[in-house]
Amino acid sequence: MIHVTVWNEFRHEKSSAKVAAIYPNGMHETIAAFLRAQPDIEARTATLDEPEHGLTQEVLDGTDVLIWWGHMAHGEVSDEIVERVYNRVMQGMGLVVLHSGHASKIFRKLMGTNTHKLRWREDGEMARLWVMDLAHPIAQGLEDHFDLPIEETYGEHFDIPKPDDLVFVSWVPGGEVFRSGCCWHRGLGRVFYFQPGHETCPSYHDKNVQLVITNAVRWAFRPRPIYQYVTDHTTALKDISLGKGE
Amino acid sequence: MIHVTVWNEFRHEKSSAKVAAIYPNGMHETIAAFLRAQPDIEARTATLDEPEHGLTQEVLDGTDVLIWWGHMAHGEVSDEIVERVYNRVMQGMGLVVLHSGHASKIFRKLMGTNTHKLRWREDGEMARLWVMDLAHPIAQGLEDHFDLPIEETYGEHFDIPKPDDLVFVSWVPGGEVFRSGCCWHRGLGRVFYFQPGHETCPSYHDKNVQLVITNAVRWAFRPRPIYQYVTDHTTALKDISLGKGE
Amino acid sequence: MIHVTVWNEFRHEKSSAKVAAIYPNGMHETIAAFLRAQPDIEARTATLDEPEHGLTQEVLDGTDVLIWWGHMAHGEVSDEIVERVYNRVMQGMGLVVLHSGHASKIFRKLMGTNTHKLRWREDGEMARLWVMDLAHPIAQGLEDHFDLPIEETYGEHFDIPKPDDLVFVSWVPGGEVFRSGCCWHRGLGRVFYFQPGHETCPSYHDKNVQLVITNAVRWAFRPRPIYQYVTDHTTALKDISLGKGE
Amino acid sequence: MIHVTVWNEFRHEKSSAKVAAIYPNGMHETIAAFLRAQPDIEARTATLDEPEHGLTQEVLDGTDVLIWWGHMAHGEVSDEIVERVYNRVMQGMGLVVLHSGHASKIFRKLMGTNTHKLRWREDGEMARLWVMDLAHPIAQGLEDHFDLPIEETYGEHFDIPKPDDLVFVSWVPGGEVFRSGCCWHRGLGRVFYFQPGHETCPSYHDKNVQLVITNAVRWAFRPRPIYQYVTDHTTALKDISLGKGE
Repeated sequence: MIHVTVWNEFRHEKSSAKVAAIYPNGMHETIAAFLRAQPDIEARTATLDEPEHGLTQEVLDGTDVLIWWGHMAHGEVSDEIVERVYNRVMQGMGLVVLHSGHASKIFRKLMGTNTHKLRWREDGEMARLWVMDLAHPIAQGLEDHFDLPIEETYGEHFDIPKPDDLVFVSWVPGGEVFRSGCCWHRGLGRVFYFQPGHETCPSYHDKNVQLVITNAVRWAFRPRPIYQYVTDHTTALKDISLGKGE
Repeated sequence: MIHVTVWNEFRHEKSSAKVAAIYPNGMHETIAAFLRAQPDIEARTATLDEPEHGLTQEVLDGTDVLIWWGHMAHGEVSDEIVERVYNRVMQGMGLVVLHSGHASKIFRKLMGTNTHKLRWREDGEMARLWVMDLAHPIAQGLEDHFDLPIEETYGEHFDIPKPDDLVFVSWVPGGEVFRSGCCWHRGLGRVFYFQPGHETCPSYHDKNVQLVITNAVRWAFRPRPIYQYVTDHTTALKDISLGKGE
Repeated sequence: MIHVTVWNEFRHEKSSAKVAAIYPNGMHETIAAFLRAQPDIEARTATLDEPEHGLTQEVLDGTDVLIWWGHMAHGEVSDEIVERVYNRVMQGMGLVVLHSGHASKIFRKLMGTNTHKLRWREDGEMARLWVMDLAHPIAQGLEDHFDLPIEETYGEHFDIPKPDDLVFVSWVPGGEVFRSGCCWHRGLGRVFYFQPGHETCPSYHDKNVQLVITNAVRWAFRPRPIYQYVTDHTTALKDISLGKGE
Repeated sequence: MIHVTVWNEFRHEKSSAKVAAIYPNGMHETIAAFLRAQPDIEARTATLDEPEHGLTQEVLDGTDVLIWWGHMAHGEVSDEIVERVYNRVMQGMGLVVLHSGHASKIFRKLMGTNTHKLRWREDGEMARLWVMDLAHPIAQGLEDHFDLPIEETYGEHFDIPKPDDLVFVSWVPGGEVFRSGCCWHRGLGRVFYFQPGHETCPSYHDKNVQLVITNAVRWAFRPRPIYQYVTDHTTALKDISLGKGE
């Protein structure tokens, strides 16, 4: 069983009727709902305005994969909680960063670049996501591309480190491309960034988007126990018989 | 269920009493046996001297992951069968190449370099395999390194393309290192090379080696159906509404 | 001084008035001409219909970087010459493969996949090339994208191995994206694939295309001598003092 | 001309007679000296105890490649200067991090992992550095390996992101391996980590180490001007003629 926590800033849904109409209980509940339909996934939720943003040490210790959506309130996420999430990724927790989460403190810290930098515009364009790596587990079950009828437009250059795996590149009518699905290993954990999910677009109701996020959860999941490497100063390895094996 | 075919040249075991003592039924049967102990794996075997080397189109069509061990008779593998295996990898079959399979026709064809080139010597040394990528599925369940009491020594420079994932680097007492566990995607398939398994060494009886190969089978496996991309000339994509989504 | 040989199939220019109007002396001469304008580059040319396709062992031995354009006559390139080029790449010669050279024998052999497979159409569209890796030497001097007013459309999925470096991704109005600039190391040599250059389009007269190819030549170039690794069987490294250094 | 600044903590040399005997004017002067012997490199130095650690905005603005050696006083480097260096890397300055600089604030920030974590011991062992990527510019002029008679031992697991290029892996008699030469792009800059250089070892007097650092400076160098990508919110690209090019 994979224990997922879906974290959402949960502000747009409370302040915008348009967003609330698409995600009446918040994006986190929409995402948690389709994950719960999977026999191997348990999903709970957490939001910014809960105590400790809903991410107590106990919650994180019980989380195999954390999904992160934030946008207008990145600055309100406490540095202490960011450090806590970071430490869990180092220990092997998976992290799936969605859409405007590219500018979150945790993603920036994990990437080491100015990941908030990219082109963007909100023109109600369609987006077409092309699979770059047809052999990748996150693309399993997809065809070579799929379309979203409306999304916010993100465009290169996106200031990320070279992805360990580049799964999707998006095309939009207006002339941009975007590396919209990217994987990295960080410490003992696995990180996936996925672009769709502007709050005014119904992308998390889309079957292909749901498949990608579900695949990403399974890709990011690590069965426990996870080996924890020796920290800092370590003892010498003096136990080698340097002679021949026979 | 993952359908594995373990292919073995199966010559050393018939000509050398030393090898036969370690692998009485051939290396392929030892490998197939530990795979069969897994609830999600079915394993059959095939060998060089069977008709079509045991790799008929029907066998390959029913194979999710092919394991390959060859050494003294690479030249006897027919080009037609190599092409058949190659085509199946392109279609999504996994391939796990073991030890001296680095010089096999199929591995050289998939890599595009002179993969037979490496340093080697047979001095009965131990080998220590270090995990480079602790977050990789093939390293799941291992500590940060494990030792084999005796193996053939392979050393750099190993003429391979940059691995998509570098899982293991080996250390040996005599002064070499070796990229002993490497992953690549090729076409729709996944390829893993793993160094241990000289015919006079009992490495396929080793618990850690067995865990690595079992992990590699699961990593290389793709559930069917697998999307088959459009070949050669394709029709234009004329169905895009270039206007706004709203 | 970098010694470049520009190889061209040189058939379209002789059979099509439209192509000849764009490249009166052949694409190879256009490419060689802008390279010759650089103080550190010497360029000669070679074509399919010359003896040994103009690629004698002597010519290749004196070539630091080979540029390859082919399209309608890939099958006429002799396997012997392909092997000769391959061996020189393994020894450290750079190779820049242009446009429809993606389906050439040499590129397929070096990549290990069905690189002739991609989407394509000839609709006279513009192409926009986005720089994915702004820190890459091949992108030096470019802005974050540049446009070609007309090119043949290539689209994903392009059946290549994961590029070591992904320098460009193209956008076209009709809905495709394409990994249009990709780097790989193969053996001791460096390989760059660059998409622009359909025979009916004036792309090799474009300043940005010329800059990319010039940058690619410098990137692919290796000063001599180049270390040649020990082949096949090697002697053991017995000269290690395993004691302490002090 | 490449403008290099060699930054050194410069504490060990002042407090240890042993270190001072090896590097009478500090490691930075030894490094700067061999760089100055190159016709295309100008080198100055900066140290921790200078005002602003010698890294004023003016100095950094005039630096193409910064070399960083630190060890006992990482915590004394001010966060403001770290941010200044970070911003220059984002803008295209190269950074070469040496030895115990793996635990520096700037390297940790750029990597996004706990790069201070690795195995280590100070046993006066030799180290053998194997070239993993013989086609890499940083390995130009080397054979496939070289030895250092005495170095501090660093061992895996080293908690770094997957290197964009893995140039060296070290072997030591005691049983460890280590990714001792690694490249990454970060923003518009290039970063190289190189392991040798413990303060009590004369590694910066070694010809091969000097060649590697010199090669790394040239690899990390970017001629100016360097394109600076559009930050944050950008205007839409409305200038595309979506019709046919003809």
